[in-house]
Amino acid sequence: MEVLRKKRDGGELSREEIGFLIRGFSSGAIPDYQISAFLMAVYFSGMTDNEAASLTEEMRDSGTVLDLSSIPGRKVDKHSTGGVGDKTSLIVAPAIAAAGLTVPMISGRGLAHTGGTLDKLESIPGFNVHLSLDRFKQLLSEVRAALIGQTDDLVPADRRLYALRDVTATVGSQPLIVSSIMSKKLAEGVDGLVLDVKCGSGAVMRRQEDAEKLARAMVRIGTACGKKVVALITDMSQPLGEYVGNALEVMESLEALKGRGPQDLVLLCEEIGAQCLIVGQLAADGDEAKAIFRETISSGRALEKFREIIRGQDGNPAVVDDYTLLPSASRQATLASPAAGFVAAMDTEKIGLAMCVLGAGREALDSTVDHSVGMRLHKKIGDPVGLGEPLCTLYYNDEGRHREAAKQVAEAYSFAEGAPMPPKMIRKLIS
Amino acid sequence: MEVLRKKRDGGELSREEIGFLIRGFSSGAIPDYQISAFLMAVYFSGMTDNEAASLTEEMRDSGTVLDLSSIPGRKVDKHSTGGVGDKTSLIVAPAIAAAGLTVPMISGRGLAHTGGTLDKLESIPGFNVHLSLDRFKQLLSEVRAALIGQTDDLVPADRRLYALRDVTATVGSQPLIVSSIMSKKLAEGVDGLVLDVKCGSGAVMRRQEDAEKLARAMVRIGTACGKKVVALITDMSQPLGEYVGNALEVMESLEALKGRGPQDLVLLCEEIGAQCLIVGQLAADGDEAKAIFRETISSGRALEKFREIIRGQDGNPAVVDDYTLLPSASRQATLASPAAGFVAAMDTEKIGLAMCVLGAGREALDSTVDHSVGMRLHKKIGDPVGLGEPLCTLYYNDEGRHREAAKQVAEAYSFAEGAPMPPKMIRKLIS
Repeated sequence: MEVLRKKRDGGELSREEIGFLIRGFSSGAIPDYQISAFLMAVYFSGMTDNEAASLTEEMRDSGTVLDLSSIPGRKVDKHSTGGVGDKTSLIVAPAIAAAGLTVPMISGRGLAHTGGTLDKLESIPGFNVHLSLDRFKQLLSEVRAALIGQTDDLVPADRRLYALRDVTATVGSQPLIVSSIMSKKLAEGVDGLVLDVKCGSGAVMRRQEDAEKLARAMVRIGTACGKKVVALITDMSQPLGEYVGNALEVMESLEALKGRGPQDLVLLCEEIGAQCLIVGQLAADGDEAKAIFRETISSGRALEKFREIIRGQDGNPAVVDDYTLLPSASRQATLASPAAGFVAAMDTEKIGLAMCVLGAGREALDSTVDHSVGMRLHKKIGDPVGLGEPLCTLYYNDEGRHREAAKQVAEAYSFAEGAPMPPKMIRKLIS
Repeated sequence: MEVLRKKRDGGELSREEIGFLIRGFSSGAIPDYQISAFLMAVYFSGMTDNEAASLTEEMRDSGTVLDLSSIPGRKVDKHSTGGVGDKTSLIVAPAIAAAGLTVPMISGRGLAHTGGTLDKLESIPGFNVHLSLDRFKQLLSEVRAALIGQTDDLVPADRRLYALRDVTATVGSQPLIVSSIMSKKLAEGVDGLVLDVKCGSGAVMRRQEDAEKLARAMVRIGTACGKKVVALITDMSQPLGEYVGNALEVMESLEALKGRGPQDLVLLCEEIGAQCLIVGQLAADGDEAKAIFRETISSGRALEKFREIIRGQDGNPAVVDDYTLLPSASRQATLASPAAGFVAAMDTEKIGLAMCVLGAGREALDSTVDHSVGMRLHKKIGDPVGLGEPLCTLYYNDEGRHREAAKQVAEAYSFAEGAPMPPKMIRKLIS
């Protein structure tokens, strides 16, 4: 109560006071109604960096914190705030592991319009994302990279707090967002972290200034918790790469690992990968880091690492060479351009939601995912387009869902007579 | 949740939305943790007058609303925000009832430094403040005035909401204070209400501007709910009258009803009483109203009415003529002035808390009250005082408590060499 009153009046809570709250919440000693009043007070008053760092560390300490000190080398992870077509983890993780980093990646699932790394991986036959923490550590030691889902023993306070935020309209509070993300990353036992904070029509933060604000806060909090953290502000004003959909994105990732990725995806992966290598002290600057990263691709070592990861997590490694082993949709249809000129903009959230309609994503947490469906974009922002020319191809299994999704995708495109500037992929580096 | 989000974002809630919240809270359909988040959002965002009026009416309607339409005449009540030595209800209620108003007064108990009307009345042997609402209505019909405590069937939502505010640091939110007070008054079924909002060292609102803000809000909300409401801003920079303590204040009230009250108390009672008569349409202006009020005193009709009230509520009416029937303390001691000059100021809250030490008030809700103890003030602000001259007399039963209380009372006085201005009793009328 004293703590609640202090926060309400704009005072700065100490580490002890925040610890008292989080431990009391976890043990049930402090009732939900006091925590929810606290959350709303934070929503209005915000938090200082010290408070957010304390909250992050107290949440991290509510469960198991991975101790990876027995595994040699730097442990580095990347985290994206989510978007449409974002398969960078599938490319960056094997590449930087091939370069010598250890990559303990705990990822999420897709929700609403955003895709999730776990859903993409599960389109590989047999691939298991539900590993015990012991097996996770074993794979990190043997393979140097593993990609798994959240487990019950990691950061339980965050899960309970998130559930309460969800029903008290306090999800959108920046210090609460930051501490939720950062506590999970700290529990992974990483030395360094590269954040990919997206902005644009398909991002949670649409405006670049909001993305920068969030990125700066995450970098500050992570640094205050003793980690090397940098953030890239990147473009999500259109889907990343050419493909959206789980199996389709795995295929595109494999293509990228074979050196045949689309330009925007390759550019972003190189940038994120390079920052990981710098944070992990395997490179001194961006040029050196990018050279190392590219070498893992051109030598085939990144692709081999991905094969090892798939094998380590019980997936069928033959998919690397034979995409027909991935689930594929029974039908496809092309969407023709209703205008001539240039693609001017895309409502990327709408495209993501249309993919949910097809079955590629989740409308609610308990939706089931159809790994085979998705789309290929033939035209992106800045591309010239003729009347009736194909804009994109939809891959689907159900005619009704396809009709609804096609309508939404068509609405998501806007056209202009003159050529617009294509969006800049890398907006800013915050360190 | 939608409602919570709307409030969080500064939107104005409709009557329906507030009704949804309060009814959901009462029925248990909306969990406490959502209501407490709502309370904290109100703490930060405030409420519009429409919202506060809706909240007031929804709380009023959570339980029984007295229907006094079968009782002829205007029903008027007064309400004070609390202070030290405030016995005006014991004088005003019988006087305005004698003048022809009906006075359905539901009062509170003392807490911390403030005294309570119910505690004072209970020092009259046999006096029963726990009447059923049926008996209350019967007395209003027969006697035209009754003074009782809160019952379970009146405004239950306010009690539950107050309990939640108390543990979520949201007690101090003005719209929540206003709706809590006003919902109880509206449930009494009154036509009009006179608020006595105190400011100064013994009041909840120490600064006059805060008292005015609260008063204006209560008048606005009461008016929005269709009642005639006026507020007086009055002085609480020193105890009201000469006596503090339950039986002592009953005695002083009886003296005032006999035309022998101290000047400040008489002045305040005349002002509050006059406003009640104007609100109750028995007088057109202040002069006429004060003349009517004074006549109830000088004619002895107000005193007779108090005797009827005591009889109606099972008290011993003989106390009116024989103060020895009231409980009295076994010992008394005089506090001598440590300085010569003038009384410059009093820490009235400290005096009220010293009375709690003696046993006259409650330090917690479950403390027991010693009705016999208290103090008489010989010197008040602006009075000249000689070194060693008596400042006040303490009436007590326990030597240890007396020593502690005497020390605190002595510390509560400040002195000056020049004569200070005595405080102005009536600061403002807000209508």
